Amino acid sequence: MPNNGLSFLDATFRAIYPQDFAVRQQAEARLNRLTMPHWALGDLMDLAVDLAGMTRSMQPEVSRKKVVVMVGDHGVTTEGVSHYPAEVTTEMVRNFVRGGAGINALARRAGAEVCVVDAGARDDFADLVREGSVIAKKIGRGTANMAHGPAMTRTHAVMAVEAGIEIANRLAPETDVFGAGALGIGNTTPGAAIAAVLTGKKVAEVTGRGTGIDDDRLRHKIEVIEQALAVNKPDAKDGLDVLAKVGGFEIGALAGLIIGAAAKRKPVLVDGFIATAGAMIACTLEPFVRDYLICAHRSAEPGHSALLAKLQKKSLLDLNLRPGEGTGAALAMHLVDAAAGILPYFREAGPVQKIVFTGTGS
Amino acid sequence: MPNNGLSFLDATFRAIYPQDFAVRQQAEARLNRLTMPHWALGDLMDLAVDLAGMTRSMQPEVSRKKVVVMVGDHGVTTEGVSHYPAEVTTEMVRNFVRGGAGINALARRAGAEVCVVDAGARDDFADLVREGSVIAKKIGRGTANMAHGPAMTRTHAVMAVEAGIEIANRLAPETDVFGAGALGIGNTTPGAAIAAVLTGKKVAEVTGRGTGIDDDRLRHKIEVIEQALAVNKPDAKDGLDVLAKVGGFEIGALAGLIIGAAAKRKPVLVDGFIATAGAMIACTLEPFVRDYLICAHRSAEPGHSALLAKLQKKSLLDLNLRPGEGTGAALAMHLVDAAAGILPYFREAGPVQKIVFTGTGS
Repeated sequence: MPNNGLSFLDATFRAIYPQDFAVRQQAEARLNRLTMPHWALGDLMDLAVDLAGMTRSMQPEVSRKKVVVMVGDHGVTTEGVSHYPAEVTTEMVRNFVRGGAGINALARRAGAEVCVVDAGARDDFADLVREGSVIAKKIGRGTANMAHGPAMTRTHAVMAVEAGIEIANRLAPETDVFGAGALGIGNTTPGAAIAAVLTGKKVAEVTGRGTGIDDDRLRHKIEVIEQALAVNKPDAKDGLDVLAKVGGFEIGALAGLIIGAAAKRKPVLVDGFIATAGAMIACTLEPFVRDYLICAHRSAEPGHSALLAKLQKKSLLDLNLRPGEGTGAALAMHLVDAAAGILPYFREAGPVQKIVFTGTGS
Repeated sequence: MPNNGLSFLDATFRAIYPQDFAVRQQAEARLNRLTMPHWALGDLMDLAVDLAGMTRSMQPEVSRKKVVVMVGDHGVTTEGVSHYPAEVTTEMVRNFVRGGAGINALARRAGAEVCVVDAGARDDFADLVREGSVIAKKIGRGTANMAHGPAMTRTHAVMAVEAGIEIANRLAPETDVFGAGALGIGNTTPGAAIAAVLTGKKVAEVTGRGTGIDDDRLRHKIEVIEQALAVNKPDAKDGLDVLAKVGGFEIGALAGLIIGAAAKRKPVLVDGFIATAGAMIACTLEPFVRDYLICAHRSAEPGHSALLAKLQKKSLLDLNLRPGEGTGAALAMHLVDAAAGILPYFREAGPVQKIVFTGTGS
């Protein structure tokens, strides 16, 4: 890993361009030639134009899909902000690796591979890393407790983002579409802190019940986040400062994954609250990143709606999924396939054919 | 076609039972054993339980999919309620048959077949019927103008519903999941009339812009519908009366398709406003039909939201699709696949396996 910090980041930022406007126009023109009321396929057409603009292609390649799940633990869990002990992170990672989690079933059906990355869990998953089931990019064994000081040093924040970029770079040659999800007990606490700082909303407006805490614990969680902001005073103009003071290792790695994907001109399906917090950090560091984001699923966490409003993005799905571990990204990949499919399809349409035909699946 | 009217309908109604409660409970119990926060996959889990309850199976078969598009014309278009002349119905059917419409692209990707049924278009599509591209179930060459009297006789209303049941019966042996869509210029006018009668809302509350009419024409459309209700006085307790007086041939056929699917214990993905109006008629005739409905996509038409609220159903998707010709049903079929997939998948999960695997598509 490079230790000269910003220069690796800066090199990556310099490779990020907005979507290609000419290709977007070409895609719009093609879709406008259809025999149907104007823009009748709505958001699917918007997505098709985005895919063309991102990939610089009228036939966007979307077949090779990866859902990357970034794992991290949070020191702030010692404040009792979550229902579950941090040990549950380990249990869930092992469930993912056994293939018994929701993400496994849904990714398989979407034709996507699942990659689990340890960005900063307490557990080392030594056996899983050895067998290749977990990719080790650990920055530390869980963050420090942000209620009493920064969650990590600025150097560690840079390293977390770089780790995510490295994952994107490693996977890019075999990946057309990325999905981004997160796993780690307590992660909605840094998520809400980041949302409060970067949207300017009150902590109480962006803090939710996570895995289902009661009213008392919710009040306590809000107080802990307010304390963390008062103690650390993160600078909203400086994404790395926000990440270091009230973020998480996996959130930094998500920001890096998204930055790396944007530099490679690959679409990223951002799933749920924590991945969107990572995307928001990424956009703070390099605003053009926004052009490569596809918001997959709207989480019930109020902070997520605040972040989507700030990013001016609408999510494709709203199915009350709770995990944000990539399940929404896997489901939304079907819509990406469909959107990519309408561009070349309509171009080829022409000769009369029998209408009852059997599809070939996605 | 039987001409003794209600007896064929009654025989079909008698075959419709609610979802199987024991299988639903079994599915819920299985999903509750997962290592994740309670019901963390939200609406997808609800859908999985519904599929189990509908099909009486813990491994619901959903692979063979048909999107049935019912076509009909509407005499009320002579009142100038739509942007487009009725001839556009013909143009759109021919576009479907050429395979150049949105529904073709999306159905193909979902592994679904598209069946176009002429339930009551002005055009006979003689060449398309001959080549097998359009199924002829024509009740009449477009309805009468409901602004001046009933859209059709009660006998024709029964025949339209029966035609839909016959389509369901014919397709059922080769179909696991039905999709239901509609095509026909002017169809949001009877759609809004049905919504007003069956939800009890004011006409102005349930009438929208259809293919994009302006304020003046919208006011006129509302007046025409109010006149149709005043002239015909449909009886909200009698679904066939509502269908005959302010419905359409394709709306009756959609009601029949849905009734027939329910009798065969097959899920039906109802797409958009007109198909939901057909579903509402079906539920008025036989309330247990509701147990087999899956609302695929929420239309922007205000009458659709009113119908969904009355049915107490939430739609799976909200992507600003305008046609309601089955596009939403085709997209939602990916979610049906995913929901069906989580039931048997989790049962089989157990042995440790490498987490990075390639899917086989849907």
